[in-house]
Amino acid sequence: MKLPAALAAAMSLAAPAEADAGSEPERVAPPIVHEVTPALGTYTDAVLFGDVWKRPDLSPRDRSLVTIAALVAGGNTAQMTGHFNRGLDNGVTPDEIAATITHLAFYAGWPKAMSAVGIAKDVFTRRNLGPDQVAPEPGPPITLDAASEARRAAAVEAQVGAVAPALATYTNAVLFGDLWRRADLTPRDRSLVTIVALIVNSQTDQLPFHLHRGMDNGLTRTQLSEVITHLAFYAGWPRAMSAIPAARTVFEDHMR
Amino acid sequence: MKLPAALAAAMSLAAPAEADAGSEPERVAPPIVHEVTPALGTYTDAVLFGDVWKRPDLSPRDRSLVTIAALVAGGNTAQMTGHFNRGLDNGVTPDEIAATITHLAFYAGWPKAMSAVGIAKDVFTRRNLGPDQVAPEPGPPITLDAASEARRAAAVEAQVGAVAPALATYTNAVLFGDLWRRADLTPRDRSLVTIVALIVNSQTDQLPFHLHRGMDNGLTRTQLSEVITHLAFYAGWPRAMSAIPAARTVFEDHMR
Amino acid sequence: MKLPAALAAAMSLAAPAEADAGSEPERVAPPIVHEVTPALGTYTDAVLFGDVWKRPDLSPRDRSLVTIAALVAGGNTAQMTGHFNRGLDNGVTPDEIAATITHLAFYAGWPKAMSAVGIAKDVFTRRNLGPDQVAPEPGPPITLDAASEARRAAAVEAQVGAVAPALATYTNAVLFGDLWRRADLTPRDRSLVTIVALIVNSQTDQLPFHLHRGMDNGLTRTQLSEVITHLAFYAGWPRAMSAIPAARTVFEDHMR
Repeated sequence: MKLPAALAAAMSLAAPAEADAGSEPERVAPPIVHEVTPALGTYTDAVLFGDVWKRPDLSPRDRSLVTIAALVAGGNTAQMTGHFNRGLDNGVTPDEIAATITHLAFYAGWPKAMSAVGIAKDVFTRRNLGPDQVAPEPGPPITLDAASEARRAAAVEAQVGAVAPALATYTNAVLFGDLWRRADLTPRDRSLVTIVALIVNSQTDQLPFHLHRGMDNGLTRTQLSEVITHLAFYAGWPRAMSAIPAARTVFEDHMR
Repeated sequence: MKLPAALAAAMSLAAPAEADAGSEPERVAPPIVHEVTPALGTYTDAVLFGDVWKRPDLSPRDRSLVTIAALVAGGNTAQMTGHFNRGLDNGVTPDEIAATITHLAFYAGWPKAMSAVGIAKDVFTRRNLGPDQVAPEPGPPITLDAASEARRAAAVEAQVGAVAPALATYTNAVLFGDLWRRADLTPRDRSLVTIVALIVNSQTDQLPFHLHRGMDNGLTRTQLSEVITHLAFYAGWPRAMSAIPAARTVFEDHMR
Repeated sequence: MKLPAALAAAMSLAAPAEADAGSEPERVAPPIVHEVTPALGTYTDAVLFGDVWKRPDLSPRDRSLVTIAALVAGGNTAQMTGHFNRGLDNGVTPDEIAATITHLAFYAGWPKAMSAVGIAKDVFTRRNLGPDQVAPEPGPPITLDAASEARRAAAVEAQVGAVAPALATYTNAVLFGDLWRRADLTPRDRSLVTIVALIVNSQTDQLPFHLHRGMDNGLTRTQLSEVITHLAFYAGWPRAMSAIPAARTVFEDHMR
């Protein structure tokens, strides 16, 4: 099924030549999708992979990391094998996949991470990736900015400590004191993965803090805008739309 | 296990004769449910299938479409085979199931839709449904009301365009410009399926817009009230209860 | 992999001797986790099982009930076999597991409950638990406080009745009139399980009501604080953090 001409003309965002109504996009959707619902096959091939994935403002490597994080945070185990492999092809390293799963144990819950570990293991084994690639010795802990860390820790103590003191301690000692300092994922990528988890699980309360942190960690406004757009497809339109107000506020703050 | 008499008397909403404490309701819950937790077996047989599904203000066909959409949007793959078959028995057509899956790729994310496709394919194959029934050539695109489409598109550009311009373009060109105009599902059914996805995934932000749109597309207040009630069982009480404030406001607006 | 010394010192909340940097914690995470991501293995063994599960303010039996409810409400079927078994070892009875599943049919939706039934059945069968243990005849219905029940029922009629009258009837006749009165789970445990479902599915709207009800049913502030902390690990940090404002308000109300 070809993309309707009007749609092709209206879109043509990333890859005008390929989105042209006259040409067939590369087939990415499995044959079964084209059999059961050709429309979904076309949207997958022509829009999602033919246009969204080719948009230049977020690299294929970053789009893979975003997609992997979305699948792990959302518990979509059936799609993980395909996207772990695609991610490795796109330059996400095995230890970054492992570190993403560990990070999301904290941001999406242990069960989601545990379900992803077995699938990652299978993918790594089939690609003959050994322990030195999957779980190399990480570098020394990253030093976070002391002043902003102190402010963050104090805010956690003030807001959480009175209600759940142990949660405040785990947050400061384990989550930020240890996990965020691990060198197996850059702070920029940790922010990316965290923001994805928050959008996928509709946790808009925590989104402003982590959008700010992500921009402090080097994510640009354009990249974050692409992340939200990418997630419209991988987590559904409503979740992406619900992220817009927080993004708008944070982007405006950062322009001041 | 029979329904307690007091409960039967208090309920007796749809099928007083069958909900009567003296009679055994038809068994729908699998034997394993009655073995492990007879209470859940009774609630399933006497309340959910013996009463809710028989309520007259939403047809079995619509209840099946609502249930299918709830399962796809919620990622409940284990229940899909049963309810795809029940839906076909209740008059949902194969291409409506396929179109619902495609619609929910956008409203609940690609992974949820992709997981549903394989199960639909198996159900269709076992029923010997051929390509002409599963994926017939759809009719020409539906023409949406130009004035309200222009207002909607302008609102998307204003609210989303500044933050994520590509998302605004995909929303206007693909989601509303193409998907909502597809003839394989009526606008009324698209609204029904969309509202279900929003309630199942707790996206109350978008609920007022889509409840309004649904009523404009022909869904009645009584039908929407039954949809929310039906979803209390398929998505849990809290998600149904969280839809009440939006429904109240929209219903009041439409009565003016 | 050992726990970093600084982390061990900062934590040492529940079991200082074992969290000590010099000793290896008991291995709970499967070998595959240590292979793919040793960091997640260490967090699992040293922090989650070596510290969180050993904290004294919530019993292992209650932590198991909380974990089981979190897995059922979150649809995490892959972890259920392990935690149903752990729960039985920790003193949760088979009929309490069954009653929890039934309760969560209402609070997380029928599909989630149905998916849990088959796994529970397998666990019970492998432990040779017969029908008299899995589904004993429950005691007579519990009598709830008439005055507060009347207030609650009137509020449901006022808030829900005008929008979805059938939902109001099911809420008062089935959910509170029958399920909450069942003797196979204490009101305190029903509250515990309900609060878990609300946090796991981010239903903060209903959280204040059920936190109040839980405290009326005998849950202490300290226990609820531990539940939220425990759920940071099983449902992710953001969901736990989003429960803090409601908990703060309810705790303050109860101290007056």
